[in-house]
Amino acid sequence: CKVQRSAFSQNKVLTIDTMNPNVKKMEYAVRGPIVQRAMQIEKELREGVKKPFTEVIKANIGDAHAMGQQPITFFRQVLALCSYPELLNDNMFPEDAKSRARRILQACGGNSLGAYSASQGIDCVRQDVARYIERRDGGVPCDPDNVYLTTGASNGIVTMLQLLVCGEGASKTGVMISIPQYPLYSAALAELGAVQVNYYLNEDKCWSMDLSELERSLAEARKHCNPKALCVINPGNPTGQVQSRQCIEDVIRFAAKEHLFLMADEVYQDNVYAEGCQFHSFKKVLFELGPQYSNTVELASFHSTSKCYMGECGFRGGYMEVINMDPEVKAQLTKLVSIRLCAPVPGQALMDLVVNSPQPGEPSYTTFMKERTATLSLLAEKAKLTEEILNTVPGITCNPVQGAMYSFPNISLPQKAIKEAKALGQVPDMFYCMKMLEETGICLVPGSGFGQKDGTYHFRMTILPPTDKLKILLAKVKEFHLRFTQQYS
Amino acid sequence: CKVQRSAFSQNKVLTIDTMNPNVKKMEYAVRGPIVQRAMQIEKELREGVKKPFTEVIKANIGDAHAMGQQPITFFRQVLALCSYPELLNDNMFPEDAKSRARRILQACGGNSLGAYSASQGIDCVRQDVARYIERRDGGVPCDPDNVYLTTGASNGIVTMLQLLVCGEGASKTGVMISIPQYPLYSAALAELGAVQVNYYLNEDKCWSMDLSELERSLAEARKHCNPKALCVINPGNPTGQVQSRQCIEDVIRFAAKEHLFLMADEVYQDNVYAEGCQFHSFKKVLFELGPQYSNTVELASFHSTSKCYMGECGFRGGYMEVINMDPEVKAQLTKLVSIRLCAPVPGQALMDLVVNSPQPGEPSYTTFMKERTATLSLLAEKAKLTEEILNTVPGITCNPVQGAMYSFPNISLPQKAIKEAKALGQVPDMFYCMKMLEETGICLVPGSGFGQKDGTYHFRMTILPPTDKLKILLAKVKEFHLRFTQQYS
Repeated sequence: CKVQRSAFSQNKVLTIDTMNPNVKKMEYAVRGPIVQRAMQIEKELREGVKKPFTEVIKANIGDAHAMGQQPITFFRQVLALCSYPELLNDNMFPEDAKSRARRILQACGGNSLGAYSASQGIDCVRQDVARYIERRDGGVPCDPDNVYLTTGASNGIVTMLQLLVCGEGASKTGVMISIPQYPLYSAALAELGAVQVNYYLNEDKCWSMDLSELERSLAEARKHCNPKALCVINPGNPTGQVQSRQCIEDVIRFAAKEHLFLMADEVYQDNVYAEGCQFHSFKKVLFELGPQYSNTVELASFHSTSKCYMGECGFRGGYMEVINMDPEVKAQLTKLVSIRLCAPVPGQALMDLVVNSPQPGEPSYTTFMKERTATLSLLAEKAKLTEEILNTVPGITCNPVQGAMYSFPNISLPQKAIKEAKALGQVPDMFYCMKMLEETGICLVPGSGFGQKDGTYHFRMTILPPTDKLKILLAKVKEFHLRFTQQYS
Repeated sequence: CKVQRSAFSQNKVLTIDTMNPNVKKMEYAVRGPIVQRAMQIEKELREGVKKPFTEVIKANIGDAHAMGQQPITFFRQVLALCSYPELLNDNMFPEDAKSRARRILQACGGNSLGAYSASQGIDCVRQDVARYIERRDGGVPCDPDNVYLTTGASNGIVTMLQLLVCGEGASKTGVMISIPQYPLYSAALAELGAVQVNYYLNEDKCWSMDLSELERSLAEARKHCNPKALCVINPGNPTGQVQSRQCIEDVIRFAAKEHLFLMADEVYQDNVYAEGCQFHSFKKVLFELGPQYSNTVELASFHSTSKCYMGECGFRGGYMEVINMDPEVKAQLTKLVSIRLCAPVPGQALMDLVVNSPQPGEPSYTTFMKERTATLSLLAEKAKLTEEILNTVPGITCNPVQGAMYSFPNISLPQKAIKEAKALGQVPDMFYCMKMLEETGICLVPGSGFGQKDGTYHFRMTILPPTDKLKILLAKVKEFHLRFTQQYS
């Protein structure tokens, strides 16, 4: 096979041996080999191949609409109006939808979603984002000049990392990321040739952050690279925890003391379900710590239209806010984003609606609130259900899904299974998930795709399927796990 | 100032001195200092500052809708239907718009534009793109598996360059780009730390490509880097030429002989105005050269929703087709794009409409053709007008605008002006354009932002303003040029 490939490739300019080595190192388990196999199986099912199941259930990716969640009516009305302004003359749309559409269109070149926006994003959208942040954070001021509209949060995160990375050898930039992490981070660091510095979340304390672990991780990293940034995902992906205010305070003090740039991935800020849990933005806590911190600590925070109650991933809308960024660097950031021209304008419009949603007294308010509340309540119910059912399975331990859209249970794998996986050259939890896919049609992502403590095994499963389907799915996972354990013990 | 900055920045993690040096090297004149000054002037005008003009005319960027071009009705109807499928029950939309919308929605997860698509793009859209390419190229086959939907063409181009770049020192990847070029290329190469290898277009022969110049450029580059790819923009940006079939054939033979990966930027493929000129896709010519070429030469070609008669830049829709790509590299490309999840789904939908536009017999066909033809005729008229008027100005020489959306005239600058510019530390054509902006409100991009032969000067001006405005603009440019020449002679 190796020989054949070489023969085939020897005349190509671009081969696996001549391509960018950093790209080869990138990995993204959420759409990795297991998902590719799931797509193959779907094709086989369509072609009439007999399987022990009739459909593949994709619980691998936080794609709410694909799992049946309905879009917010108001958002889609305004988007339709912006797309085809003739509809502004139609009586079927409520006045508040029309006025939002008019306002957005007036801010677009030629009153069209089809014009490029300013590189940083449409002015009035950035102003609305700033006001939203101020309301959210109890009045902490936000300057629209610090807001950049992005192509989903991913694009903002990669852009910030790109600004930060430099150096070679021992002075190469290191970036601290949690383990488990969302693999966009590890992939972006591989792409940029930066050093990934791992700090472990504490599974025993519901995936909280430990100051001592941050210190250990940093001290170790300083021996071989130059750690410059600390990334936090809150609420957590894949781990579903909601960090306490105290923890965020500790992290900010740590970043200030250790001279680290903070990156706060807060795309699940409305996805908080557990009682006693509350979302605290890094920005707000930073300002509550007083000017010593709020005037110095550099922070970039990220939000998106893809999660929360909206789930509008396909529009690739998002924003980032940068705080205490050196003005010269900010000019460079603006230049960098200008080269990609602008974030997709429909996504910018949608972001505007998220931060400027119907207000009490407006005609769409009641429906909007009903839809929003229904979606969030359902997610809360499914978070609870997932945790409860998984914890009834011997050999599976699941922390509370306090927020976000995923459970990340710990699974005990029998030694015999681990041995067999290794003999096949597979990571044990990949072996487990692949077997589950083949036997049940359920598509999960192995914990190894996010990182985990050596010798522990997990999977990530979204809580997004409709309740009925989720129950069936959880029952099947239980059944599979028992069978698997028995088979290999 | 230097001292102040250091004092200000010394406590920052991220400063101009500690940031990614490749990002600092990136330049993008289309949204560079002159555009920033134009935005300032607009603000000053709004604040009542008196100027020798009442509005800024932005002829710096190919943003058709911002210049008043109307979107295609059919496209926007389908986008509205996709955004808010309730409208499928409305009688105001023609049946073909509804059936297109239904087809797109059926291919979306949960029938929603808000779901992620497959990483490579929505299946049925890629199939439609493949059929479009086959029709365009007289039946040359196109495999939908070779089509990737992108976030505008820019994103596809950067992704391909990213795959190609590797090595250090003398084995660092070199990429051949035309001079003048669209500065996305130079910026992306700076970002990736690759070597920019310049080949000059022949201004005396209407900006055509010379084989001998390609040979010179390559031979020189091989002394200090490893040239792996050759980029061609056809129709040309900023230079507006349409390459002849013979020229494309020569380029393909050259790439084959010299073992270069070909990148064909064909986003202006419908923008061909000059009599006797015709768009020839690299793909088609490649296949017409026979299997010796069509089975071996690696080619990536790019298209987008942003130009042609659509001008829908804001949606960031686009595709690329890869031909003869090593299957292992293709797997890496698919992995790479999966990390950014997917191109914006509304842009994918729009791309679908472009490649699957109304057909004879369908209710929207007549209107669609009328709108399309009107836009393209108007552009052809404005291309001619621009060339003619500019050539009446002593000291300005303008090649025919055969295609695309820009004129790129040669301007003679008096020695005294060149001296004064240099004394101010400015590039002479930047000095000229900045002065024109201050005196007339016209915003152009200096030729130096695209590259030009030493000692020659140019500017890029879009042909997009409405005809009346374009005439005024051209008269003002003429007046300014005469005044400037007199002032400095």
